[in-house]
Amino acid sequence: MTANLHWLTQATKAPNETARSAAQARQGQLTKPPGSLGKLEAIAIQLAALQGCEKPRAEKVFISIFAGDHGVAEEGVSAFPQAVTAEMVKNFARGGAAISVLAKQLGATLQVVNLGTAFDTGELPGVLQCNLGKGTANFARAAAMTQSQLAAALQAGCDSAVQAQKTGAQLYIGGEMGIANTTAAAALACALLQKSPQQLAGPGTGLDQAGVQRKAEVVARALALHAAHLGEPLEALRRLGGFEIAALTGAFISCAQRGIPVLADGYISTVAALLAVRIQPGVASWLLFAHRSAEPGHILMLEAMQAEPLLNLGMRLGEGSGAATAVAILRLACALHNDMATFAEAGVQGKI
Amino acid sequence: MTANLHWLTQATKAPNETARSAAQARQGQLTKPPGSLGKLEAIAIQLAALQGCEKPRAEKVFISIFAGDHGVAEEGVSAFPQAVTAEMVKNFARGGAAISVLAKQLGATLQVVNLGTAFDTGELPGVLQCNLGKGTANFARAAAMTQSQLAAALQAGCDSAVQAQKTGAQLYIGGEMGIANTTAAAALACALLQKSPQQLAGPGTGLDQAGVQRKAEVVARALALHAAHLGEPLEALRRLGGFEIAALTGAFISCAQRGIPVLADGYISTVAALLAVRIQPGVASWLLFAHRSAEPGHILMLEAMQAEPLLNLGMRLGEGSGAATAVAILRLACALHNDMATFAEAGVQGKI
Repeated sequence: MTANLHWLTQATKAPNETARSAAQARQGQLTKPPGSLGKLEAIAIQLAALQGCEKPRAEKVFISIFAGDHGVAEEGVSAFPQAVTAEMVKNFARGGAAISVLAKQLGATLQVVNLGTAFDTGELPGVLQCNLGKGTANFARAAAMTQSQLAAALQAGCDSAVQAQKTGAQLYIGGEMGIANTTAAAALACALLQKSPQQLAGPGTGLDQAGVQRKAEVVARALALHAAHLGEPLEALRRLGGFEIAALTGAFISCAQRGIPVLADGYISTVAALLAVRIQPGVASWLLFAHRSAEPGHILMLEAMQAEPLLNLGMRLGEGSGAATAVAILRLACALHNDMATFAEAGVQGKI
Repeated sequence: MTANLHWLTQATKAPNETARSAAQARQGQLTKPPGSLGKLEAIAIQLAALQGCEKPRAEKVFISIFAGDHGVAEEGVSAFPQAVTAEMVKNFARGGAAISVLAKQLGATLQVVNLGTAFDTGELPGVLQCNLGKGTANFARAAAMTQSQLAAALQAGCDSAVQAQKTGAQLYIGGEMGIANTTAAAALACALLQKSPQQLAGPGTGLDQAGVQRKAEVVARALALHAAHLGEPLEALRRLGGFEIAALTGAFISCAQRGIPVLADGYISTVAALLAVRIQPGVASWLLFAHRSAEPGHILMLEAMQAEPLLNLGMRLGEGSGAATAVAILRLACALHNDMATFAEAGVQGKI
């Protein structure tokens, strides 16, 4: 491991088991049948353990959107042209994208990081330009990233977690934008889970059946090309990943090192979360899962993480949009947990 | 039909198909792959049709909680004592219940209607006292309600819809509280869907297996007793229902007559919704479904209504709590629908 990656090996924090127990006990005293708030109870208790206090909150939310292009787009694996990545970065900056609207509604901080797009976006207000390259190399023909690109992308994620910590974030969301990035995610998922491209390549932004077949073939070709080097998660990430996937991986590891709960989004985000856990198993404790995406491979990823997401709305947009949507539920879960009366306070009788 | 029930036969409004088409067209122009917001797209379009405008809103939400006791509680079909109904009405009034917390978080109007509890609550601020009786009769031995109790309960629901309309509500939620009301709901569901008590009696607030079995036996006994009179939905409601179930039924019919969209909650609420549809088929268009409850019979009810609810969080509390939770999602769906940029506005290219 090169010197500039040593931060990845720093220990992650441990959840606070005292706070977890206190929150669990509190749930049992609230004026409702035990368990009757379902997942809202479990998520409040989990957040209490991560925030180290009996009454958790999800008011201060930090959202980072990482954008980057993918050389593999030249294989015709996306329903949209590559120019859309840069165009969407501009759309984020102007407030017109789904995640812009959601962040505004939630009063969340939204940071946009352009790691490297094939088309120049120019300077944009509120967009951090990292210029790691005009997208990755086509991983069906070569390694997607150089060592220094990988290190810089991971570091950009770490920087974002540092920024989140500075703002006092109670919750971190990482989102992404990058035409063809479900192809990179599928390739990584195949490498990490030992599954076939047919199981993990899906329609993404809207491929037809022939397109999905082509995508699976491209992934199969890439897996054959890099086969000897996929046993180590960082090297798999460098060869098959993308700038934004590496940044998300770095961000999730850094959040776990700093004790910031992470709300994982959909397919791409979950692949990054799995990479983060493979690199640093302690990351697993810091991950909450927002939703089950419509991308078919996502369910396999979630099973591999033993994740039971809050929502299943058939969303498949990325940008952190599923996670942002789940914030609304998380906030209500916290309000119920924190503000409901106990049986004793209300003078209500418990179970017979 | 007696004179005081004639209002039930008034026509329901029709959704606005022009607004639906406009909303549908708008969704196709927003800067995202078509369909990538999943159910958030569908619900925004549905709400647009119901509100008769291209850009729907769910800001002004009116929540009515109807409370009433059930004579069938004496058969030992609930995990909680009957006194809890009145105690929870007090808890609603003091702001300590789940729905109180949710309504406050959402800035929703919360109206509490005590139709008739076995234990006296006394006058309470913000609680409308209807005094229809000290709960219903035990429907395993007699009809639950008299004709005049049924009419008064339906009318209380109608009055609530009138009140919602006066406040300019963009969305109506009906909740309920009543120890043993899942037993009444199960009996009604059996009558309406021609299913067996074993399929529709569940643990409710927390019965063990023996308790569920006893509940199914009580329902079976009631169905046998009233068998000759269950073909007509209003009479089934009078014999097997409860004050709060009748009020919800009346409220849903009245909302559909006034053109107020209804967000249905869990098991009890869905039984009332099905009754409303059987009495007035036009009600179906005005129903949105919030969540799939953990009560096993709810899934059969939802299938009968061809409903695909937004959430599946394992909630089983009632009080309208699942519907209130879904409001947060509905609001984000509206914000995305209303505020995202179109491809043209953002200069983003569409599908290849």
